[in-house]
Amino acid sequence: MTSTAPIHPFDAALQLQPAGPDRYNGHTSAAYWNMVGPFGGTTAALALRAVLNHPDLLGEPLSLTVNYAGALTSGACAVGARAVRTNRSTQHWTVELLQNDADGQPVVTTTATVVTAARRETWSANDTPMPAVPAPDTCAALPQVPGVEWIRRYEMRPIEGGIPRQWDGSGDSSLTRLWMRDNPPRPQDFCSLAAMSDIFFPRVWLRRARQVPAGTVSITVYFHAGAQQLAATGDGYLLGQARAQEFRNGFFDQTGQLWDTGGTLLATTHQIVYFKE
Amino acid sequence: MTSTAPIHPFDAALQLQPAGPDRYNGHTSAAYWNMVGPFGGTTAALALRAVLNHPDLLGEPLSLTVNYAGALTSGACAVGARAVRTNRSTQHWTVELLQNDADGQPVVTTTATVVTAARRETWSANDTPMPAVPAPDTCAALPQVPGVEWIRRYEMRPIEGGIPRQWDGSGDSSLTRLWMRDNPPRPQDFCSLAAMSDIFFPRVWLRRARQVPAGTVSITVYFHAGAQQLAATGDGYLLGQARAQEFRNGFFDQTGQLWDTGGTLLATTHQIVYFKE
Repeated sequence: MTSTAPIHPFDAALQLQPAGPDRYNGHTSAAYWNMVGPFGGTTAALALRAVLNHPDLLGEPLSLTVNYAGALTSGACAVGARAVRTNRSTQHWTVELLQNDADGQPVVTTTATVVTAARRETWSANDTPMPAVPAPDTCAALPQVPGVEWIRRYEMRPIEGGIPRQWDGSGDSSLTRLWMRDNPPRPQDFCSLAAMSDIFFPRVWLRRARQVPAGTVSITVYFHAGAQQLAATGDGYLLGQARAQEFRNGFFDQTGQLWDTGGTLLATTHQIVYFKE
Repeated sequence: MTSTAPIHPFDAALQLQPAGPDRYNGHTSAAYWNMVGPFGGTTAALALRAVLNHPDLLGEPLSLTVNYAGALTSGACAVGARAVRTNRSTQHWTVELLQNDADGQPVVTTTATVVTAARRETWSANDTPMPAVPAPDTCAALPQVPGVEWIRRYEMRPIEGGIPRQWDGSGDSSLTRLWMRDNPPRPQDFCSLAAMSDIFFPRVWLRRARQVPAGTVSITVYFHAGAQQLAATGDGYLLGQARAQEFRNGFFDQTGQLWDTGGTLLATTHQIVYFKE
């Protein structure tokens, strides 16, 4: 079968070629380029993609932790993904991304662990109701930022806590809420959910109304939705919410939630972020 | 120098002998035994201890993620801890715990990643004030639970959301607040902070007032305090707070905070937990 439909840039960014047991070759994506490296959400999604492509995979993603050990440069990368333990209904993975340094030696840029699980229906309950917010079509879309390519790959409609308009040190809250989806729209899956978990600009910018250098050190995503729920979500908007809990001596944390428009909590996420000054 | 002071059971539980490059030998602790394996907090602390003992260590713990891949049995275990990347001010570690199976073959019971960092003073702010709660000495200490040894190693003084007295399905909240410290008291350090991050009983028991089988699959701890702050905390009480965000199809998450009595947020923590039915 041939298809004339162009591949979505997000799927293009996650293309991996098998390169031996537990190993894949990939490439950073110009379409998701940030200022000095790829958008961290794409890197997290690439680590998860390797696990999901692996022939030994059991079940669906339950948790993902990605540690940004070093900056990726534009070009080829290798992804190692190994199932270190397979139980009856859960599977534990270790993942690393490598790139060659200037001397052609592979160096680890990213480490990750993934847990996948074969889930079954049980008693369920939401303990974090979606906040009451205006509908997506009543919230203006964020204008695109010149020079930051990955932001063009998302449609973001801030509700509150948008990027400060004035960097005047007047900030007093770290809470952001926004509607978001892929641009162009794309049916939600585990990889896009992982990437969108990293969509929030640094909380320190908002809290201080000051744009200091900042970068994610480690992110964790817990997937509450299964494939069936994601299919029901389709390519609709997600409500993202993020806030910091503590800023201290060069690092802050962020805790976040992603709901679909029906109010289903698809994922919760946390990260620890470096900041300067 | 000889010392006649007995070693604290927590320090005894974390004893590791070097066993070659990047490798240590340890032993599970009877003093911290749970119902069918060691207290998960001790396992997390043991993974961190290996990193802190390593001669290549840079800085202090910033983040810790521990994945409970399989149950540990009573006896010897090996801990592998490797610095996969050392930057100017951060260092990335991968850790695994192994035990021999019935055939004498080593199997992975636990995987972990740790980020350590050389921190420096910057602008800092707390965005999660400690809730107003009664002082520790006005809250009754939890009676010890027969048959669960590790609980005897902690002094716990529940404030709200204690273990249900009646398993009658009447629960309506997943929020727990309690004062806690080591028993006997012990000066706080990174390892004890990691262990206390896992002290909360399963949120599903509280939310449902129903005691179903449950166990942590993955836990993450972000350390906001440095060694100096921990020294100031001493062996005083910590206020622990935990709540779930979502219960869905066999798993729920937990988000938590640990403050010292002065209201300093020492750590934030998250976990994803298996539950049955």
